[in-house]
Amino acid sequence: MAGDAEATRRRLIEAAAAEFAAYGIAGARVDRIAAAARSNKAQIYHYFGSKDGLFDAVFNALVVRGVREVPIDATDLPEYAGRLFDSYERYPKVARLAAWYRLERLDTKQPLELVLASYRDKISAIEQAQRDGAVPAHWDPVDLLALVTHLAALWTANTPEFTTLLGDRSRAHRRRVVTDAVAALLAR
Amino acid sequence: MAGDAEATRRRLIEAAAAEFAAYGIAGARVDRIAAAARSNKAQIYHYFGSKDGLFDAVFNALVVRGVREVPIDATDLPEYAGRLFDSYERYPKVARLAAWYRLERLDTKQPLELVLASYRDKISAIEQAQRDGAVPAHWDPVDLLALVTHLAALWTANTPEFTTLLGDRSRAHRRRVVTDAVAALLAR
Repeated sequence: MAGDAEATRRRLIEAAAAEFAAYGIAGARVDRIAAAARSNKAQIYHYFGSKDGLFDAVFNALVVRGVREVPIDATDLPEYAGRLFDSYERYPKVARLAAWYRLERLDTKQPLELVLASYRDKISAIEQAQRDGAVPAHWDPVDLLALVTHLAALWTANTPEFTTLLGDRSRAHRRRVVTDAVAALLAR
Repeated sequence: MAGDAEATRRRLIEAAAAEFAAYGIAGARVDRIAAAARSNKAQIYHYFGSKDGLFDAVFNALVVRGVREVPIDATDLPEYAGRLFDSYERYPKVARLAAWYRLERLDTKQPLELVLASYRDKISAIEQAQRDGAVPAHWDPVDLLALVTHLAALWTANTPEFTTLLGDRSRAHRRRVVTDAVAALLAR
């Protein structure tokens, strides 16, 4: 039975990730998520409390996967940005979910602890690399993390019009723009 | 009468900008926009055809204002990025509108001509600066425009959690992070 519950929970999170990526938090429909997960609304409220609770569960799951699949290596931030880029390419939903999150949770008073903890770990790693001389000390570590993660998301943020100008730039080319840009930040 | 019509149109665009910034395209309510502009739904459909037509009008108006207030100076891209940053600070709605636009118009088949033309002008300016030696030739001009405009929007794209880590960094500090980053891209 515990296995069934876990499987249902997983199906709900997967269906919710697709629904939230497509329509955002306000636009998502709980009944569509329930149907896609072969579940029902009562189960969603039972497991997650509310639509917002379900979104938090989706977002937390993505952060956990992101930290596991793309651990920071602060001694090679260009390649770290490249691996973040790879992960955005592999999971295009993630950038959309993060964008909805920023738009719809701007005034949140309850930061997600897991998200905060993952940022703090990355900042510590950068500070350590600065003490070891692997990263120039002139950058504030929080600012540098903001720059590196923002640059990794460079190609997720284009308007339809800019996308037409980009033409058929290959994935390898776009990755190199990201890693070159981060390398330029770190040049002494 | 023509003056009245123009004033109504302007009020509608202003009210629509606030509504779209808050709720996005799908989430915006035409009746709320009509009420806020002391107008009615019939006038909105008369002037703009549809809610999407109204969004296009808002977005075009912002692009026109952006190009007028922050013209590109490709011979000083760090300061151009700084002025873009200033404009995001002055009009926080703009970054939100652009983010909704990217999320909700991903599959658009009809690029907004005015937006496309403004990108093309900027790319030409960068190419000219490269020919004049003011900008290093190793960057593809389209990639470089993507980097500069993306970096200018660095602080508009933070999650609530990251914002708590940023603390009370001053506007001047955040601006300098943007201009320093662009300057680093252009170092030879």
